[in-house]
Amino acid sequence: MDTRWDGLLVNARLVTLAGDAGYGVIEDGALGWHDGMIVFAGHRTDLPAPPASLADERVDAQGEWVTPGLIDCHTHVVFGGDRAGEFEQRLQGASYEDIARSGGGIVSTVRATRAASEDDLFAQSLPRARALRDDGVTTLEIKSGYGLDFDNERKMLRVARRICDALGIRVRTTYLGAHALPPEFAGRADDYIDAVCRWLPALHAEGLVDAVDAFCERIGFTAAQTQRVFEAACALGIPVKLHADQLSDGGGAALLAGFAGLSADHVEYTSEAGAAALKQAGSVAVLLPGAFHVLRETKLPPLDAFRAHGVPMAVATDCNPGTSPLQSLRLAMSLACTHFRLTPEEALRGATVHAARALGLKDRGRLVVGQRADFVRWRIDQPAQLAYWLGGDLVSAVHVGGRVIVGA
Amino acid sequence: MDTRWDGLLVNARLVTLAGDAGYGVIEDGALGWHDGMIVFAGHRTDLPAPPASLADERVDAQGEWVTPGLIDCHTHVVFGGDRAGEFEQRLQGASYEDIARSGGGIVSTVRATRAASEDDLFAQSLPRARALRDDGVTTLEIKSGYGLDFDNERKMLRVARRICDALGIRVRTTYLGAHALPPEFAGRADDYIDAVCRWLPALHAEGLVDAVDAFCERIGFTAAQTQRVFEAACALGIPVKLHADQLSDGGGAALLAGFAGLSADHVEYTSEAGAAALKQAGSVAVLLPGAFHVLRETKLPPLDAFRAHGVPMAVATDCNPGTSPLQSLRLAMSLACTHFRLTPEEALRGATVHAARALGLKDRGRLVVGQRADFVRWRIDQPAQLAYWLGGDLVSAVHVGGRVIVGA
Ligand SMILES: [Zn+2]
Ligand SMILES: [Zn+2]
Repeated sequence: MDTRWDGLLVNARLVTLAGDAGYGVIEDGALGWHDGMIVFAGHRTDLPAPPASLADERVDAQGEWVTPGLIDCHTHVVFGGDRAGEFEQRLQGASYEDIARSGGGIVSTVRATRAASEDDLFAQSLPRARALRDDGVTTLEIKSGYGLDFDNERKMLRVARRICDALGIRVRTTYLGAHALPPEFAGRADDYIDAVCRWLPALHAEGLVDAVDAFCERIGFTAAQTQRVFEAACALGIPVKLHADQLSDGGGAALLAGFAGLSADHVEYTSEAGAAALKQAGSVAVLLPGAFHVLRETKLPPLDAFRAHGVPMAVATDCNPGTSPLQSLRLAMSLACTHFRLTPEEALRGATVHAARALGLKDRGRLVVGQRADFVRWRIDQPAQLAYWLGGDLVSAVHVGGRVIVGA
Repeated sequence: MDTRWDGLLVNARLVTLAGDAGYGVIEDGALGWHDGMIVFAGHRTDLPAPPASLADERVDAQGEWVTPGLIDCHTHVVFGGDRAGEFEQRLQGASYEDIARSGGGIVSTVRATRAASEDDLFAQSLPRARALRDDGVTTLEIKSGYGLDFDNERKMLRVARRICDALGIRVRTTYLGAHALPPEFAGRADDYIDAVCRWLPALHAEGLVDAVDAFCERIGFTAAQTQRVFEAACALGIPVKLHADQLSDGGGAALLAGFAGLSADHVEYTSEAGAAALKQAGSVAVLLPGAFHVLRETKLPPLDAFRAHGVPMAVATDCNPGTSPLQSLRLAMSLACTHFRLTPEEALRGATVHAARALGLKDRGRLVVGQRADFVRWRIDQPAQLAYWLGGDLVSAVHVGGRVIVGA
């Protein structure tokens, strides 16, 4: 050996997810990393030299299971204020109209997000991202969409970056200016879309936009408006994603596929043709069982069509104050199994391999040579336990680029 | 003051649950304790003297919300082995029969529990109880029922006591010998019930039995068999509880009420008459939304009848490896709100005031003078957040008898 590795984990049961199916388990596995990347993932007996001669930093996993770091590819974790009061009002019998009349709903989150200083927004949002990380998330997507003007969208995206820096995890920021119509644009949705498109170049120039997203729905923006946002993104070479077909089949999946977008998210009402279009475009279907659960939806995404067409299915928390108050990606995996009948392996792939793809990232999601050394050591007896337990403190340690950021 | 208190918490927002309804909030509240009991719970301005002269140990809650310690009144947290494999098989398409044929189901838990040494069973079960505690549980009920012979039921109950000692929380142990028919008694259920009754006095004499429970169901034991177990308990002055009417209306609630039992648990199929009988007997209905969720049940408990008759409704995790793999009582509260439409306040009362009653305990569940000084400080903006967030690290500190056991 002319160079030593930065680190080596031994005595691990690796869930590599290396192939197209199966956990890809390597018993008595070893994982070596250098410069933050995996340089070895295999049986201990296949190591090129005795461990002591390979790396100074050696970790004995003591038989623990090790998976790729989880990737939460759809969250709204940065927001101001609190919507638990609405949750309570609804359970006390208030209608959505009652709540809207009393100033609730998304506009209350917009108001609180706008009112918060950048530091305040950071302080309010940090504990949620920390909870996600402490349950195994090493890459976190965070959307804007509660600012709805240039300065406040920018503030949200800056806070998203700061949060992940502070927590030692990796961030992908998504510009979701086309999330809702702000009050000052009431009745002027097309004008607002103009503004959303106008703000994009400056935000992108600041390095704040990894992807562009929109909410295409009867209660959101039209297909034509969505298309204009996507065209603005494409002009800058920014990949697109879409909140698609959550409450009705608005043809969102096909629209997204037409732009070769990264992912269509929610997709409960996506048609068979929509599934075929996603496959054709190489796009991912992102399942968000938290909102399905909380809203007590009954319309399942077209899972069999996704499987039949080979559309990759990701799973994410959709962590947001209105419809998915979910601070654990493992919980989203559990809900995906219970409500959508995903297998635990599909749920795990959905929160690793396919979630990476939904973010356009090829360098993470599996434990194989050349991927980033982002991994989690778990206190479990078999991989299925990750989606089986609701709650529980299963994380032994979280590593990002090899470095321990949670645990020891 | 002739005696000083052991401790005093100031600058707290107390959720006292003092009355029959409402959170009973005291803003700018103070909580004093001595010898482990609450000696003051009120406004800071009503303190009998300046804080510094009242207690040496003073905690500034810095405006945090403080609730009574949560009480999980129905768990099977002590068990050996792992059933995540079955969960996975079912999602891969295996039937319950397939799983039973391959040695799965409750008998696999019985086998693993019997095979484990007492120390091993302790080590396997401790992390689950710790997760419950770290999310706010200060009193934990734990049932036997996977040993199904004298030595192994005794082992389970001893482990239950050891776990709570190790974690600094309070335990109530429930003897559930009549949980399932062990293989060696196949076809001889009445003989097994004889044995269950015969083992009880010795277990009770060892101080291992706070209550007696049974599983009365078509797939469990008959009403007549349950009655014999209850008679054995009554002869020793031990209160009874019942797994009642989960899968069918077997008249379990009325049977329990006939013995003035502490609680009827599950109760999805309980009739209006059953609800009336519970009220008459002063018994609690314990809702277990975890099993309802995981089994994807659709038959709701008769919530309106319970409310109309004034039957107290408790909420518990039912933490068990087969049907409710739930390691957070807050998650059970959330599921009770989403699936059963409890209000967040009902869910909180269900996990405190009414849970205490389901265990026959009058000395906890509220923040009022004379109750135990078991309380939790939370990082929340309003009490409804406890049932609103799925996951998240909301606990700031857990106090038992005033003493901090989690947090600082
Ligand atoms: Zn979303
Ligand atoms: Zn039970």
